[in-house]
Amino acid sequence: MYDIGIIGGGPAALSAAVSARQRNKSVCIFGRSLDSSLLFAAEKVDNYLGLPDLSGEELLNQFYAHARKQGVEFVESRIKQIMPMGEYFVINADNNFVQAKTLILATGINKSRGIAGETEYLGKGVSYCATCDGMLYRGKNVVVVGENAEGEAEANFLADVCARVTYLPLYQPVMYLKENIHLKEGKPQAVLGENGRVSALEVGGEAIPCDGIFFAKNSTAPESLLFGLETDGKNIVVDRAMKTNLPGVFAAGDCTGAPYQIAKAVGEGLVAALSAAAYLDEGNRK
Amino acid sequence: MYDIGIIGGGPAALSAAVSARQRNKSVCIFGRSLDSSLLFAAEKVDNYLGLPDLSGEELLNQFYAHARKQGVEFVESRIKQIMPMGEYFVINADNNFVQAKTLILATGINKSRGIAGETEYLGKGVSYCATCDGMLYRGKNVVVVGENAEGEAEANFLADVCARVTYLPLYQPVMYLKENIHLKEGKPQAVLGENGRVSALEVGGEAIPCDGIFFAKNSTAPESLLFGLETDGKNIVVDRAMKTNLPGVFAAGDCTGAPYQIAKAVGEGLVAALSAAAYLDEGNRK
Repeated sequence: MYDIGIIGGGPAALSAAVSARQRNKSVCIFGRSLDSSLLFAAEKVDNYLGLPDLSGEELLNQFYAHARKQGVEFVESRIKQIMPMGEYFVINADNNFVQAKTLILATGINKSRGIAGETEYLGKGVSYCATCDGMLYRGKNVVVVGENAEGEAEANFLADVCARVTYLPLYQPVMYLKENIHLKEGKPQAVLGENGRVSALEVGGEAIPCDGIFFAKNSTAPESLLFGLETDGKNIVVDRAMKTNLPGVFAAGDCTGAPYQIAKAVGEGLVAALSAAAYLDEGNRK
Repeated sequence: MYDIGIIGGGPAALSAAVSARQRNKSVCIFGRSLDSSLLFAAEKVDNYLGLPDLSGEELLNQFYAHARKQGVEFVESRIKQIMPMGEYFVINADNNFVQAKTLILATGINKSRGIAGETEYLGKGVSYCATCDGMLYRGKNVVVVGENAEGEAEANFLADVCARVTYLPLYQPVMYLKENIHLKEGKPQAVLGENGRVSALEVGGEAIPCDGIFFAKNSTAPESLLFGLETDGKNIVVDRAMKTNLPGVFAAGDCTGAPYQIAKAVGEGLVAALSAAAYLDEGNRK
């Protein structure tokens, strides 16, 4: 069990990790590869104080080197879901389940636009994890929407459990699907419901009736990852100590809103880490 | 007239200056010498992301070099007072009066503990600037409290104007005082008042009757520099955009509260600068 699980791999995440290590907390960063950070593509960055005239890639490499030196652990993965367990959290990182006492969300700009009804029916037919929730749909009809080939694995697993699986790929090419999976083309438009539960997925004006919809996404909106997290539009709501509305959950960087700048992310990462460390120490004193 | 006047010379001030220059705003930093920053004395700093293992002095030198390269101007001075003039501010920097359209306060940890009654009677007999307010005390009795030798210049000026000047030095040695100045030893304890105005200064249990008290301080609390600035204890109150309660006035770094860390200061400096730039651009559109 880690003291602090950090979701994201950009400057906010790395700064939080470095400061948490200085407070002697065990830290694991759950992030994507280095080049998935928006910063990686920046040609020149000139307003991070003390390190002028570097490319985004050079800066990120210096940041990673600093974090590695401090003993930060890294798990390169996509986070599917986070489950609050009372005193700790279970992080589903590509179906590898890891525990952490506190969380720092540093997920970057929220690019994951959900479709209409998606957040509303989360946990009521909408899921981001077949491994977690698939058994709830035994003998039922489900649709899997795949933004990448991982959706195929989800669909293939569900094909053994469900009555009917429809697969809607949002990428090309589709690699391997079991024979009993129905392939569908088009873009999902809305999650439809009846009596408070999912009843169909609307695709190109057509409603595909189903009991459950599984989304395999490139990135998941933080409020979909962690149920009950307060957001304001795309931004996670935080106070000046970088606390979210959920106890033990902190946030830092672009996911808390503009300006989308390294210095802001690094500063907020530090504050989030010190707040998480104080929260842990407070708990230990009880 | 500068677009942005920045008060303070630490990481928050320098980061604000660098980001303001990137937005093509003219910037002047009013700060003390490099070695007056608390950071200067730090033996090793290891949690400013990307620049591990440096001394405070080395970091500050890199920070200054970055700011100088961006065309930031510096005025090494002690700020005595800031006067809001509606559309701009007049900054009294060692009696050199400079104008700026907006302000960023990055004054560091508020070490200037006022004595009892000092803030209460500000503008009602308490002043930090003899040049500004001396003439209001023509023919009256004043006390000058000097934390450094600049208090002597204040007292000598007032000696030509006031009926009686008492000088209370909080340092040694006293260099030169005009003959008609009364030297007093001891520590000031409280500003006493009658009918809403200063009536005396309490020193070692004795009340020295006077109409005005001038403090020549090493550092002045921000709320004493700028009338009406909202503080919470020692901290300047800011929102997430680093706005204070006064239009056109922003704050960043240690003066907004803990944690007292470089990354937090640098991040807040950037946010304050971008908020000030947006405020200026907003004004120009009108």
